[in-house]
Amino acid sequence: MAWDKKDLLGLEYLSAEEILTVLDTARAFSEVSTRAIKKVPALRGKTVVNLFYEASTRTRASFELAEKRLSADIINMNVSTSSVTKGETLLDTVRNLCAYKIDVIVIRHAMSGAPIYLARNIECSVVNAGDGMHEHPTQALLDIYTLREKLGDLRGRRIVIVGDIAHSRVARSNIWGLTKLGAQVTVVGPSTLIPREIEQMGVRVQHNLDEALRDADAVNMLRIQREREKLTLFPSLREYAILFGLNRTRMQGLPDKLIVMHPGPINRGVELSGSVADGPNSVILEQVTNSLAVRMAVLFLVTGGTSLHPEHMSA
Amino acid sequence: MAWDKKDLLGLEYLSAEEILTVLDTARAFSEVSTRAIKKVPALRGKTVVNLFYEASTRTRASFELAEKRLSADIINMNVSTSSVTKGETLLDTVRNLCAYKIDVIVIRHAMSGAPIYLARNIECSVVNAGDGMHEHPTQALLDIYTLREKLGDLRGRRIVIVGDIAHSRVARSNIWGLTKLGAQVTVVGPSTLIPREIEQMGVRVQHNLDEALRDADAVNMLRIQREREKLTLFPSLREYAILFGLNRTRMQGLPDKLIVMHPGPINRGVELSGSVADGPNSVILEQVTNSLAVRMAVLFLVTGGTSLHPEHMSA
Amino acid sequence: MAWDKKDLLGLEYLSAEEILTVLDTARAFSEVSTRAIKKVPALRGKTVVNLFYEASTRTRASFELAEKRLSADIINMNVSTSSVTKGETLLDTVRNLCAYKIDVIVIRHAMSGAPIYLARNIECSVVNAGDGMHEHPTQALLDIYTLREKLGDLRGRRIVIVGDIAHSRVARSNIWGLTKLGAQVTVVGPSTLIPREIEQMGVRVQHNLDEALRDADAVNMLRIQREREKLTLFPSLREYAILFGLNRTRMQGLPDKLIVMHPGPINRGVELSGSVADGPNSVILEQVTNSLAVRMAVLFLVTGGTSLHPEHMSA
Repeated sequence: MAWDKKDLLGLEYLSAEEILTVLDTARAFSEVSTRAIKKVPALRGKTVVNLFYEASTRTRASFELAEKRLSADIINMNVSTSSVTKGETLLDTVRNLCAYKIDVIVIRHAMSGAPIYLARNIECSVVNAGDGMHEHPTQALLDIYTLREKLGDLRGRRIVIVGDIAHSRVARSNIWGLTKLGAQVTVVGPSTLIPREIEQMGVRVQHNLDEALRDADAVNMLRIQREREKLTLFPSLREYAILFGLNRTRMQGLPDKLIVMHPGPINRGVELSGSVADGPNSVILEQVTNSLAVRMAVLFLVTGGTSLHPEHMSA
Repeated sequence: MAWDKKDLLGLEYLSAEEILTVLDTARAFSEVSTRAIKKVPALRGKTVVNLFYEASTRTRASFELAEKRLSADIINMNVSTSSVTKGETLLDTVRNLCAYKIDVIVIRHAMSGAPIYLARNIECSVVNAGDGMHEHPTQALLDIYTLREKLGDLRGRRIVIVGDIAHSRVARSNIWGLTKLGAQVTVVGPSTLIPREIEQMGVRVQHNLDEALRDADAVNMLRIQREREKLTLFPSLREYAILFGLNRTRMQGLPDKLIVMHPGPINRGVELSGSVADGPNSVILEQVTNSLAVRMAVLFLVTGGTSLHPEHMSA
Repeated sequence: MAWDKKDLLGLEYLSAEEILTVLDTARAFSEVSTRAIKKVPALRGKTVVNLFYEASTRTRASFELAEKRLSADIINMNVSTSSVTKGETLLDTVRNLCAYKIDVIVIRHAMSGAPIYLARNIECSVVNAGDGMHEHPTQALLDIYTLREKLGDLRGRRIVIVGDIAHSRVARSNIWGLTKLGAQVTVVGPSTLIPREIEQMGVRVQHNLDEALRDADAVNMLRIQREREKLTLFPSLREYAILFGLNRTRMQGLPDKLIVMHPGPINRGVELSGSVADGPNSVILEQVTNSLAVRMAVLFLVTGGTSLHPEHMSA
């Protein structure tokens, strides 16, 4: 076990050993959601605030469920009804929350770096649930957890990430995490959506999906933001689907055991055809299930949990 | 006890025996809300998601309270902040929720049949909290529970339902349930709001309210949707109130023991005058109170509760 | 201990002894939020509905946390999704909630007197979380609690309240409470924002801030509503800051031990400069922390708690 951080801000700031600590702790927690009584007292009497400045279904619901299964007390802060509209600074909002003697703030914010700035200025723990185009560390941790459950040790494994690499915090966090664990990462996408400097992160760039996937162990199909179509960053959703989407025909030329991932929500017919999304290679719903165990582990570790004693896990 | 269904989709799909099982289970739960500690552990460690695609105060609050008094963990999904705005299919949204190993989805949706479609495609339980113009089974169950507490066995009892029968899921569910239990149901309303085929459901049609109520045991005054006035489906709210509303004058010509129900929220001065809504014949607030016991019973049964053991009901 | 009220409607309606009972009970609860397990069972199995007809971050979050730390079951009612949009009366909405056998309604409403009207007509407890321009009693109680922790007995203490006295429910509640406890209250602000009748409440009026603060023990800097600027009730935010704001320069001429309070959220650079808001005289974050203990005390007392037995406070 290697963890002494009060925050989870990004995979850039974690060592391989710390990442493995999260994953191992997550494995221990994964069993809780299979029980008849899906609840452990590990965070009883601790308070978690979910402070979401961007709309979110799946990430917020996943965090909230993880918190409930740890028996934490939870406050959901809806940005549209909050003081930010009254001109209060973000730091004042968060300092006020900490004055309630809360334990963790789970924050999603459109500004890259907001969680880092807050973490330096407050005592309570900060968990980054997505900041601008910077990082989405718990998403990457659950992606990596899912890969590791399927593939074991990731050293030398070939992982392909497809889509809008330039604007994706999911891609950035995955790249940091996967390369630290020794995987070989290739990114694929329209050249307008692959930043030039990306190779400095230790990844290879490809523009032909079939070539990139020829010897891949897994592919992570990023969600394409439909809004970007209007910005003419790629020709059309239809053309995107042809060049960079996975469908039954393309799958026939690919490795039988290729693992297909997607962070959701899926644009069916764009990144993935229905037959691939629901097909035998897809681990998409397993990612969703694993998100709970990974977020439970993160919340447990940042609040000072060191090792899992039986009393943390009692029914 | 007769219950082996994982879902509650509509009263059309229940036998008389199954309906009575819900009502008897509800009677056992009704005592919980009178305790000093209004809480039992029957659903401890189970997760319920309230997925409301239409705004609702009373139904959502009633379900949420029922869930809390059963000690369930609860996630409220607000449609406006959800992935549906991102183009995800309803089935994908719900499959994702099920991947969190939740136990029940309570769903309200504008599309008739949405809960049935989902229930067939997912493992977790689905409770229909109102789907389009199709059914609102828990409302009908609480109406019928209230009638049965007042009248005992409903065989041969005369129940009148007044209002916009054509568009009312409450009316449809009540008709299914009441006729299965042997009651005689009469529907009353403007001819534009009574569908022609309604007699095939085993009810009588009347257009004169006083005649219909002359020998009635109870009347369920449906809420009139003010929006329909603009559609000229009836002349005016004022005229509706005169022809189809209950006020002190009309009550004088009616049976002394006539039970007056309303699913709420009341348009005072339209369906009911204040003196009738708050008068001695009204059981409207009892309906509200009974809603908790009925919804507790439904949640208990769909999650596999068979008989109520003492440990389900401990304080 | 002196408390036999089912509601908290305003400090106008409390005796000095009752106010002191709340403050003493709050002191006992203040220790809970410093525990490892920040939770006591005092309201277990009781239900609190937070019914907010005006947007609020800090007050709602503070009440919600107080309720959770008392182990109550909680329903949050969002006004925009509620039946009020369907034309239901406020009293019907609240009577329906009471029919669920809930214990407390915490209500914020734009209409002065709404909580009083409801409290007279329903059985469950009503806690006023701010009604129009009338009262905000829990805010005043936490302000007074904070002052008493710093100053001890408030008899003869000089407290200055600065800002928009005319429109401030915080000012009104503070004036009622502080004068009942024997403090000398001075109000300061632009003459357009000081009502003529205010002296009848037993306070002095000043228009020069430096003079008013010369021998003050504490100053409560009310938040200025930026919307009022447009109404030309004062010349500009800039001029307001110069005449009625606290900054480092002005602080140099004031008593060393002057206690600076603000109900939040702060307009930095208007009521307070950053250096004063975060400086050694400021107790603003202590007010936030104290809000929990005060609201826990209020909820405990209105639900019939008389004295704190050990079982109310067990971990």
